[in-house]
Amino acid sequence: MIETPYLLFLGDAPDMLAAKVAIGIRDWRPDHAVGQISLPGCGADLGLTEMTLAEARDAGAKTLVIGVANRGGVISPAWKEVLIAALEMGYDIASGLHNLLRDEGDLVAAAQTYGGTLHDVRVPTVGYPIANGVKRKGKRCLAVGTDCSVGKMYTALAMDAVMQERGMKSTFRATGQTGILITGHGVPLDAVIADFMAGSIEYLTPDNDEDHWDLIEGQGSLFHVSYSGVTMALVHGGQPDALILCHEPTRTHMRGLPEYDVPSLEELKAVALPLAQRANPACKVVGISVNTQHLTEDEAVKYLAEVEERMGLPAVDPYRHGAGRLVDALAAV
Amino acid sequence: MIETPYLLFLGDAPDMLAAKVAIGIRDWRPDHAVGQISLPGCGADLGLTEMTLAEARDAGAKTLVIGVANRGGVISPAWKEVLIAALEMGYDIASGLHNLLRDEGDLVAAAQTYGGTLHDVRVPTVGYPIANGVKRKGKRCLAVGTDCSVGKMYTALAMDAVMQERGMKSTFRATGQTGILITGHGVPLDAVIADFMAGSIEYLTPDNDEDHWDLIEGQGSLFHVSYSGVTMALVHGGQPDALILCHEPTRTHMRGLPEYDVPSLEELKAVALPLAQRANPACKVVGISVNTQHLTEDEAVKYLAEVEERMGLPAVDPYRHGAGRLVDALAAV
Repeated sequence: MIETPYLLFLGDAPDMLAAKVAIGIRDWRPDHAVGQISLPGCGADLGLTEMTLAEARDAGAKTLVIGVANRGGVISPAWKEVLIAALEMGYDIASGLHNLLRDEGDLVAAAQTYGGTLHDVRVPTVGYPIANGVKRKGKRCLAVGTDCSVGKMYTALAMDAVMQERGMKSTFRATGQTGILITGHGVPLDAVIADFMAGSIEYLTPDNDEDHWDLIEGQGSLFHVSYSGVTMALVHGGQPDALILCHEPTRTHMRGLPEYDVPSLEELKAVALPLAQRANPACKVVGISVNTQHLTEDEAVKYLAEVEERMGLPAVDPYRHGAGRLVDALAAV
Repeated sequence: MIETPYLLFLGDAPDMLAAKVAIGIRDWRPDHAVGQISLPGCGADLGLTEMTLAEARDAGAKTLVIGVANRGGVISPAWKEVLIAALEMGYDIASGLHNLLRDEGDLVAAAQTYGGTLHDVRVPTVGYPIANGVKRKGKRCLAVGTDCSVGKMYTALAMDAVMQERGMKSTFRATGQTGILITGHGVPLDAVIADFMAGSIEYLTPDNDEDHWDLIEGQGSLFHVSYSGVTMALVHGGQPDALILCHEPTRTHMRGLPEYDVPSLEELKAVALPLAQRANPACKVVGISVNTQHLTEDEAVKYLAEVEERMGLPAVDPYRHGAGRLVDALAAV
């Protein structure tokens, strides 16, 4: 559990693309961010108030979140000055970088001296149980994709936001480092030891009110041979009542696997649903989320209508048109 | 890679059941064992020559293998005396216990002083790559089960033994601690970090001669919700050309999951084969291995004949009747 609110550290991010984590926090948990702090030459601007460490601390910030992914994941000397000053002022620091805060001797020393916590969200800190498969109370929705990086996290966050607006009971359950930094907690599933993967997802989505929905962030794809085991643990550990199929229609091959075709939505449904029903016989596919960023608005509308007709399920791009119809479909379960 | 040959340490094993690892080495790699060493009160006897550490060292033993699983996995003080004496004499030590040799300060100190290696085979020591899905040369066979602990390791070892007798090119590829101790190398898949599972299996089963078969030890089951992600990584990382379906017909529910039914062999085939064909479109189910230990000989013969008729595939219990017919089926691929 990372203490909120945050001050978002943009460092010397060359552009907005490098500030993906900070953008996610600003967009999905604006209450978590009191402001931003940049270094000279920073090319990213979130449009939040630029603050010094002291100003943000006075505004209530508890944690400095590294909101930028730099090349190679290195924690540069230019950053160190700010990070150490933050620890001296009583901040915790949270990071999803490959290179860990805990491997930097000067940061560890400062954290020990000033009593701060270094959160490396890529590394599990919980001893997860082995999954027991026991049916849990409450409802769960899992986004599964025809490929990696097709918008599964975005879909779950967008659905959660709509459900909150409508006064429904819902919780976004993060399973990757960006999601964990956005919400302040979750399971870094790709870093969990094999035997405990499904158990970590049971731990993440415990018994809840019968009318509460966990919106579980998907990972990988059952069709992506590098990561399919991770996805399988989500399908069985998550015990989903509802699946949302996610797709990016312009992709010509699986991400990082040039020899592998992207499956159709029909193929994804045919594989994912029976596997999910093993853990929850009542599971249904309730909707389709399409990432249409590489289509024009006209193309997107036409494509979505065609998919909706073909699959007999609501098909939306939550970025363009909102996630309301996916939430309608969940509410009908 | 664990140095062979071994001296097999039976400790104070209460019975033969506790000596499963040592029995596996004796049965499958008799050339790896120069003898056995027991403590007073030991209730297990492999029928090998009982030796002192010095006698076994003179007979060429390089590694003392802890061939016994005691309750709780604790390394008891009674054992320590022998283990430290072995390190002093120049032995390495290998163990598959939950409690690690490397966490015992006195063993670590002795290993450092005398230059020995402590092999904890439950812990990966290789930085495995992320799977790339590129088609590899040579052939691979994977045993998949309707449940955990239905004889997948035994099946692969028995097939490998028949293939060696016949002069075929084959290698048993261990993916669990018992298999690793038997053969001296392998991947402890259940302890690999999620993102690297499939890659560790690609690493374990690299390019080989076109007529060489890797016999990959299976783990878990696609139908076992606690471990299905591990199995999935084997199915995709292993790129099997051939699947052997493994089953134990008297089991009333999934191991450790009282609310989960054991699937039929038909259900296993229907799920496993399309998933395997994602990584290797040519993959086929070639045979069925049934663990009939809880049936009489008559019941076993009748059951196997019925399965063979129903599935249209050779069905054998390799323990009762040998793995020859499964190897025939492989050779026909």
